[in-house]
Amino acid sequence: MEKKVPVGVSARHIHLSEEHVAILFGEDYKLTEMKPLSQPGQYAANETVAVVGPKGSFNKVRILGPTRKATQLEVSRTDAFALGVKPPVRESGDIAGSAGITIQGPAGEVTIEEGVIVAARHIHFHTEDAARMGVQDKQRLRVRVGGDRGVIFENVVARVSEQYALDMHIDTDEANAAGVNNGDLADIVD
Amino acid sequence: MEKKVPVGVSARHIHLSEEHVAILFGEDYKLTEMKPLSQPGQYAANETVAVVGPKGSFNKVRILGPTRKATQLEVSRTDAFALGVKPPVRESGDIAGSAGITIQGPAGEVTIEEGVIVAARHIHFHTEDAARMGVQDKQRLRVRVGGDRGVIFENVVARVSEQYALDMHIDTDEANAAGVNNGDLADIVD
Repeated sequence: MEKKVPVGVSARHIHLSEEHVAILFGEDYKLTEMKPLSQPGQYAANETVAVVGPKGSFNKVRILGPTRKATQLEVSRTDAFALGVKPPVRESGDIAGSAGITIQGPAGEVTIEEGVIVAARHIHFHTEDAARMGVQDKQRLRVRVGGDRGVIFENVVARVSEQYALDMHIDTDEANAAGVNNGDLADIVD
Repeated sequence: MEKKVPVGVSARHIHLSEEHVAILFGEDYKLTEMKPLSQPGQYAANETVAVVGPKGSFNKVRILGPTRKATQLEVSRTDAFALGVKPPVRESGDIAGSAGITIQGPAGEVTIEEGVIVAARHIHFHTEDAARMGVQDKQRLRVRVGGDRGVIFENVVARVSEQYALDMHIDTDEANAAGVNNGDLADIVD
């Protein structure tokens, strides 16, 4: 059976806690939605922040909403070298002992001691897609993407929920290494 | 049999023709060697140039010597997006119809209509290494690199010569996607 999954390429982005939104944008500020993302309820906000590391900075890092319990900056390894930070490869939400960074908004600045990660590549499966493809939550998959420059990614984490829409998330390094674009189809090998 | 190959990560770099060295650095200028590269006779020069695309530029692009018949700028796909150019993935020397760029040196500037490529990943084999591993010149290989973030690269081009030292060349996107560093070992799968 063919097991095809659309690819979504994640550029560097940040999730903010309510507390940090208040510091960066002002008390009681609410993020505003620019466009919805593939996962239900998630959106790209109109707002951006600057992130400043020991070696370099990025001026317009997109905020993804809604707010979360903890602030989390997701960068590629290429970005990490440019910033001068050493984030671990982690699943979203697993930020204990990860890298720190300084974040600047129009109303203030905050330095986090942890929260910077390189996101581990993963596939969101709706429960029905997972059942159809015989995939379990947390399973590690091998997934082929790309044409002539094709690569097989190992250790792609399966995340299964009724809240999810079928989508494989890779970062810009991974997309560029494989020569793939948003919306291209990946094949689950095993 | 184990088929292990050391990985060399290529950052963006440029090869210049003698004619372009004269324009960029002055008549009769000779590039000077900073350090030798893994391939015999090749070296990183002390000299750098700026490259300017429609969307962005890089100020200090390392020149690799010696001079070649045609100027060739090798960038990652991440770099290509930053410059605003669309180079094809090509083997070194195969620049017909590739992308153009403007190159600036201390003595002058030159705009090339073609010569910008994303280098196709490849392995240099000394003839004896190729014989030992049962690899033919121009063969396409699948090669595994990396640890937890491991990937299998397809269509890795084998290049066999008595002039070559055993080395797998990938660019920064590919290295970062796989989480590998210079000198790590890759495994030829088949």
